[in-house]
Amino acid sequence: MSNLRVTVWNEFRHEKENEFIGGLYPNGIHGAIAEGLREHGFEHVRTATLDEAEHGLTEEVLAETDVLTWWGHKAHGQVSDEIVARVQARVLQGMGLIVLHSGHASKIFQKLMGTTCMLRWREADERERLWVVAPGHPIAQGLDPYFELPEVEMYGEFFDIPQPEQLVFVSWFEGGNVFRSGCCFSRGNGKIFYFRPGHETYPIYFDANVRRVLANAVRWAAPVAGPEFPYYSANGRFPAINEKQSLEPIARKESKRARIG
Amino acid sequence: MSNLRVTVWNEFRHEKENEFIGGLYPNGIHGAIAEGLREHGFEHVRTATLDEAEHGLTEEVLAETDVLTWWGHKAHGQVSDEIVARVQARVLQGMGLIVLHSGHASKIFQKLMGTTCMLRWREADERERLWVVAPGHPIAQGLDPYFELPEVEMYGEFFDIPQPEQLVFVSWFEGGNVFRSGCCFSRGNGKIFYFRPGHETYPIYFDANVRRVLANAVRWAAPVAGPEFPYYSANGRFPAINEKQSLEPIARKESKRARIG
Amino acid sequence: MSNLRVTVWNEFRHEKENEFIGGLYPNGIHGAIAEGLREHGFEHVRTATLDEAEHGLTEEVLAETDVLTWWGHKAHGQVSDEIVARVQARVLQGMGLIVLHSGHASKIFQKLMGTTCMLRWREADERERLWVVAPGHPIAQGLDPYFELPEVEMYGEFFDIPQPEQLVFVSWFEGGNVFRSGCCFSRGNGKIFYFRPGHETYPIYFDANVRRVLANAVRWAAPVAGPEFPYYSANGRFPAINEKQSLEPIARKESKRARIG
Amino acid sequence: MSNLRVTVWNEFRHEKENEFIGGLYPNGIHGAIAEGLREHGFEHVRTATLDEAEHGLTEEVLAETDVLTWWGHKAHGQVSDEIVARVQARVLQGMGLIVLHSGHASKIFQKLMGTTCMLRWREADERERLWVVAPGHPIAQGLDPYFELPEVEMYGEFFDIPQPEQLVFVSWFEGGNVFRSGCCFSRGNGKIFYFRPGHETYPIYFDANVRRVLANAVRWAAPVAGPEFPYYSANGRFPAINEKQSLEPIARKESKRARIG
Repeated sequence: MSNLRVTVWNEFRHEKENEFIGGLYPNGIHGAIAEGLREHGFEHVRTATLDEAEHGLTEEVLAETDVLTWWGHKAHGQVSDEIVARVQARVLQGMGLIVLHSGHASKIFQKLMGTTCMLRWREADERERLWVVAPGHPIAQGLDPYFELPEVEMYGEFFDIPQPEQLVFVSWFEGGNVFRSGCCFSRGNGKIFYFRPGHETYPIYFDANVRRVLANAVRWAAPVAGPEFPYYSANGRFPAINEKQSLEPIARKESKRARIG
Repeated sequence: MSNLRVTVWNEFRHEKENEFIGGLYPNGIHGAIAEGLREHGFEHVRTATLDEAEHGLTEEVLAETDVLTWWGHKAHGQVSDEIVARVQARVLQGMGLIVLHSGHASKIFQKLMGTTCMLRWREADERERLWVVAPGHPIAQGLDPYFELPEVEMYGEFFDIPQPEQLVFVSWFEGGNVFRSGCCFSRGNGKIFYFRPGHETYPIYFDANVRRVLANAVRWAAPVAGPEFPYYSANGRFPAINEKQSLEPIARKESKRARIG
Repeated sequence: MSNLRVTVWNEFRHEKENEFIGGLYPNGIHGAIAEGLREHGFEHVRTATLDEAEHGLTEEVLAETDVLTWWGHKAHGQVSDEIVARVQARVLQGMGLIVLHSGHASKIFQKLMGTTCMLRWREADERERLWVVAPGHPIAQGLDPYFELPEVEMYGEFFDIPQPEQLVFVSWFEGGNVFRSGCCFSRGNGKIFYFRPGHETYPIYFDANVRRVLANAVRWAAPVAGPEFPYYSANGRFPAINEKQSLEPIARKESKRARIG
Repeated sequence: MSNLRVTVWNEFRHEKENEFIGGLYPNGIHGAIAEGLREHGFEHVRTATLDEAEHGLTEEVLAETDVLTWWGHKAHGQVSDEIVARVQARVLQGMGLIVLHSGHASKIFQKLMGTTCMLRWREADERERLWVVAPGHPIAQGLDPYFELPEVEMYGEFFDIPQPEQLVFVSWFEGGNVFRSGCCFSRGNGKIFYFRPGHETYPIYFDANVRRVLANAVRWAAPVAGPEFPYYSANGRFPAINEKQSLEPIARKESKRARIG
């Protein structure tokens, strides 16, 4: 069992607008992800979606969230910049963030990475095989050396992200491409995991290995009660800290700077 | 000699507004930096400043720039978002970027890092000693195991940046702080180096070791004529690439996806 | 409470040979470290020392060890190469390893790093201040932005280790040096943490912050039940794996290689 | 043109013992590699092989070598430990090392990595496609987004190496595997590049892209004249450095340590 408080965010448009996708994910992609986390012992899982007020990500919800998962695809541009800034601030303060599949192009991921996060893609029902390249990493818990997904949308290199701090998965695709499919980053006090699988037209979030990886990733991304993130103030600004008092004595010098004052 | 085309950017306000600082840097901070680069054999060094049209960073200037150095302090907010986006695009396409001292809080550095880039600071004329922790790195060329700056503004940890890809310098400060003072990153096809020294009230950019580091950093950050950055289009957008044709044959499957069409 | 099985290894010579040191560590350095771990809820802590049979590190002991801590100083050369190879094999299979202070020069650390692991040092009773540079890392749990040790042996850069995968602490020393004091590595399925504090002539392992870091580090280094380490065989060899059967069909080619057979 | 002094080392057994391989590489694998480097403007290329005195790697040869390339396969065990230690010392002092293909299992690579360096492999004449995942890295100079080798021996993950400092290539294999095929490391003052392609039964070292990568890698791995590697003494030992004199004054304390003396 886990006391971690998880919020599963979903754009939740495809499922309502396309009958086939709605049939694959009758409770929405968020419903399938939340179900998988509950199977793995997470007791405090809630969901939030784009069309709720403040996209379901109020200050209160985020304050009570240890790890946020993010799925979006066709409506990235409709996520308000204010909410994106709020999520970024919470990540810097320690909230974990799991970015899923087409979330690569979300505002929040681009903002935290500083790059385009773009890639090559192809919809051709091809096979993917995810190889574990960091077998001792907590996100590989319970996995075999690789696992397969029979039909997926392909994502291929070059994936325009900063070099991951740890690379956990590399994908092989039937059509001839490879991809860094499981990538760990840290930003401020927060941990971020990008996980590739998950197109809306395949039942990816019902797959046992995918669900296991998501559960592992949420545990890995849990906040750490270390030194508080020091650069966040009540008005949402990130100020530097003026350390007027030195920790050690500083010798008196003949500085010309004295003349400035 | 080097054919690299370097543009030295400076906010250029302190020097005009404060007599002491203007005396320290009679040709501006950009003038001192450019002079140092020329001493090290760079033949194509130009400068650009905030108050020029487009901050001196037109499309033409950036297109002809291999490496851009950036110094700003009190007017970060006056740099236009459009120019910042333009610089980011050029970095992703391969232009090197050297961010100096108080440039840690510039829009362009924050945008490329995805973090606040904030830190602790103190103005107390204290001594700094920069230790080389990556002696085989090209940016350490010609240096001793450490070098000193007699009087500086202190920058201290926690420095809110992503984990550097290589850490070249760690600073010791008289007042009791430490700092990751030389940090390498890559973003897209571009290389970025953050270098700590450089407050406007000290003659830092006349220091021989600092000048050597800047020359080394410019050489290290030079563009590489590798695979072209694939995600930049004429209208300034960063589109993903739809690889309709696979590189390898994909077996026909009984996919339910066929029903979507 | 933690079910992790920890073995605290100590050279255990100084304490027996020097009265002052024996007075500081009446139960040995291992005794002080083990006591600190028990305070932090570890129920399965045992100790092992150089002069025991097989240095106390039999196959059985290692098989029952999740995380091993290592302190040695004056007798590195007396650790048998066979035991070092045994410890390395267990690390690759997933056992965590915490290397302490003068353990930097141990055979096991040098073997796992591939470098000399040498450094500058000075015994001058100087003050050390350890700054957290990765506040979201599990090893920083419960810490303030920095902590101090009033009198220590100094270790200074350049520290000849591979670039750490995560850098958690950077030390400031009164005498003017800096040091990467908390360094994370992975090797095979195992995780390794090097932690600087700990000279035999100071009561470092009774310090509350040091004990907290050790407890955090042991938890972080715990084995992960991911894909089994595939290259270890019963006879202690590390063979590659011949994958005779491919996972995907390979097209018949006109290879000249056919002629070799 | 390049003044870098390159030594191309080859085991040189297969070519003499197997007619087919001897036909593919009439001047030996070393001959083909040296020819490729000369094509790319290296004027000072020499070769050395296992069966020469001291394997052709005397103190004099190594002292005059800026970058060493290493190919071995069936006789790793016949390389003397003394020569391996000599090569390691030179790498730590700054010599570049390019480890090729089956050199993954060489003593020198294992010693510098601290891991088994083992992997999965298959000889089935399958196609390999190497994708560039770091397009701004100097080793990607002149390359397209990927290049192909029509028939190769497969190497697959898990590749038991420390996490590379930069990952330049990821390979796709027809038979369903992936591999981190271009990996950068630093050790001491030296830079190391592992490059996967190169089995003796295929004409890999005549391939234009492979030759280009080798030339790029040699340039990247060139020694940097930074701070001298401080831990190597005339007798081949790696001593730590006792900094008796502090750089800054240390306050007199009431240390109990005084009692030791």
